[in-house]
Amino acid sequence: MRPGPASSGAAPRLPRDGAFRTVEAVSYFDHNATSPLSAAAREAWLRANDEVWQNPSSPHRAGARARIRLDAERKKLAEVLDADPDRLIFTGGATEAASAVIAHFARTLPADARIVVNPTEHPCVLEAVRASFEPQRIAWLPITANGVVTPKAVTEMCHSISDTRSGRVGAVVVMAANNETGVLQPWTELAEVCRQERVPFVCDASQWLGKLPAGGLGEADWSFGAAHKFGGPKGVGFLQRAADASGFSIRPGGGQQRGHRGGTEDLPGIAAMVAALRDAEQTKVLHEDERLRWREQFERKLLTSIPGVRVVAAEVERLWNTVSLLLPHGENTRWVARLDQRGFAVSTGSACATGKEGPSHVLAAMGLSPEEAKRVIRISAGWDTTQENWTALRDALVAVSTEVRPANNVISI
Amino acid sequence: MRPGPASSGAAPRLPRDGAFRTVEAVSYFDHNATSPLSAAAREAWLRANDEVWQNPSSPHRAGARARIRLDAERKKLAEVLDADPDRLIFTGGATEAASAVIAHFARTLPADARIVVNPTEHPCVLEAVRASFEPQRIAWLPITANGVVTPKAVTEMCHSISDTRSGRVGAVVVMAANNETGVLQPWTELAEVCRQERVPFVCDASQWLGKLPAGGLGEADWSFGAAHKFGGPKGVGFLQRAADASGFSIRPGGGQQRGHRGGTEDLPGIAAMVAALRDAEQTKVLHEDERLRWREQFERKLLTSIPGVRVVAAEVERLWNTVSLLLPHGENTRWVARLDQRGFAVSTGSACATGKEGPSHVLAAMGLSPEEAKRVIRISAGWDTTQENWTALRDALVAVSTEVRPANNVISI
Repeated sequence: MRPGPASSGAAPRLPRDGAFRTVEAVSYFDHNATSPLSAAAREAWLRANDEVWQNPSSPHRAGARARIRLDAERKKLAEVLDADPDRLIFTGGATEAASAVIAHFARTLPADARIVVNPTEHPCVLEAVRASFEPQRIAWLPITANGVVTPKAVTEMCHSISDTRSGRVGAVVVMAANNETGVLQPWTELAEVCRQERVPFVCDASQWLGKLPAGGLGEADWSFGAAHKFGGPKGVGFLQRAADASGFSIRPGGGQQRGHRGGTEDLPGIAAMVAALRDAEQTKVLHEDERLRWREQFERKLLTSIPGVRVVAAEVERLWNTVSLLLPHGENTRWVARLDQRGFAVSTGSACATGKEGPSHVLAAMGLSPEEAKRVIRISAGWDTTQENWTALRDALVAVSTEVRPANNVISI
Repeated sequence: MRPGPASSGAAPRLPRDGAFRTVEAVSYFDHNATSPLSAAAREAWLRANDEVWQNPSSPHRAGARARIRLDAERKKLAEVLDADPDRLIFTGGATEAASAVIAHFARTLPADARIVVNPTEHPCVLEAVRASFEPQRIAWLPITANGVVTPKAVTEMCHSISDTRSGRVGAVVVMAANNETGVLQPWTELAEVCRQERVPFVCDASQWLGKLPAGGLGEADWSFGAAHKFGGPKGVGFLQRAADASGFSIRPGGGQQRGHRGGTEDLPGIAAMVAALRDAEQTKVLHEDERLRWREQFERKLLTSIPGVRVVAAEVERLWNTVSLLLPHGENTRWVARLDQRGFAVSTGSACATGKEGPSHVLAAMGLSPEEAKRVIRISAGWDTTQENWTALRDALVAVSTEVRPANNVISI
């Protein structure tokens, strides 16, 4: 194994062009933004580039070997997901998959059909929905104060829309786990409800994959993920299409992937993604209970150490790696900077939202005020994060809490 | 340097799972389909995965370093292309870029505007055009018998469309070099004509990049390429957008790349692509004259060795690496298989078209009959291809020509 993210993710080397300074070791708590390449993925990528770098569409035997290998990788991925390999399409990531699925519904759904969406979805889903559907065709699912979509809410939404004279539900879109809060959705039950209602269920599994067992995801009609969230390379992902969407196409091109997506397949990236996911499934997810204990211990001790701190969605099941922390005072950007100086990389929220105006849509949907949302930081560990890393982060948070004060410095005496 | 494609592309190793057999050394003449990863790209990819694997959108310093590096890579690419870095968007390849550009025109052009297209474009361009535009809005450019689009043809087409009562030209689409025949288009002159006509010029530079100097491509309004055609990794490419298309978006998402393309940037892939292109520019393209001589020598000797053989578009400037060969008898698939057995990987045409019905649209547009097109093979060398490799290929072709006979075996005596 290469040095894990908890100890900087990699041995810092001075780039030869000198443009980038070496960095002190950083305890990396931003895995929901991205994870470093796993050893398994690295090896698979290099091997594929040595052995099967040819174009899978080429007519010679080397091309045929690449073609066979591509099918083999698809089957391996299908095994992990309990999915039908024929329904798996390799993509350039989760955002591409999300865009393509939503565009597909916009193209194929009848004009009176509405798309039912969880309001805490990732921006790549929300923006695709807003770009493809008029506001009156989007039905926002109610969520609990903890950000959970209940099966009952989906059932009721489906019935309420179907009861209107001209309405029907075109699809239900709910992620498996939230990127900002780690909140787990009951996607198995949601998939079952959608099956009963005969409505396609779309599940963004980006944050679930590699952290919790992927088995059963094949049950969703549509699901997708991104390799770099679980130790695979960036720029690779997959999409599981619905069984009845055999004509689905992400884009035209040279007929690759049975016409589902034009463009030469990135076989080394695909092999690395599948290697990373299998590695996570076979050697990592079984440690979930222990890692959950570490996170819970971190949270418990932190709540007693920093008065007024709160864990967002504390009452519900969340990813073992994620803590969304509502701080008692000071803007989150100041906390992030102070923690960074102390050697801890945490985030203000979704990495995507960094630098953008406005507070998190996820926290807003969960009822936090804009002022509160600006006091939230996201902590997301990796499999290499140790219990000591968690303890050190807690100590750092306690230290920073005495440095970061409200602007007007009103302290009760 | 790793062993070049001429000696199999890589030292064959037995995969540990035993699923794939080791292969005898193959002389690889299918570089227009894809090239192996260059040493420069491999090193850049590994280094970026060690040093700047973090998410460029993350708010900590490690994220900032990735962001700075991303901008640096964009500037390096811009230097190679003589382009404005602000107009460069990193993509998942050329097919993605082609689809996005054509979809952009379909969305933004007035209803009476027509798209003027070279009929020998790559399938990813043609299929995108056909998917986005009604047939009456597509104007096919006339080409010479050698497959060349002349500046005069573009001027006349623009004038002829503008002269109609309700017509205007929305864009002109001509590739830099053809993937099947290697025919070079006078893209510098075409760009100039389009500037005069005030019509956007779109140039697919996929086969040009890494083979001939890229400087000046920034002059096209839109241009794009794919890393894996010039020694970069698969799944990475770029698109240069028009200066006035600041609102252009490939897909929504988390606001990455200034909103031009949602999705976490594949910085290691990007760094590897730029390294491969710079390597080609700095150490390879200067050998163009020599490589062109080797190809010409191969062609000359072949024409005297195999009666009835013909080089497609022999009279015009072509890529130094490409020979489109019209064979005197026997279907191209039989030649490809026989050559493969002798250790030479060549193609029947575009890799994308393999296994698909119908003859090449490129050859059809150049006036070859379907029967003739089925007798064409594509030979495409790489920078590591030696003069000896060309000679050995010629010998193999001569040998195969005596094995492959017309089905009815009519030989004049």
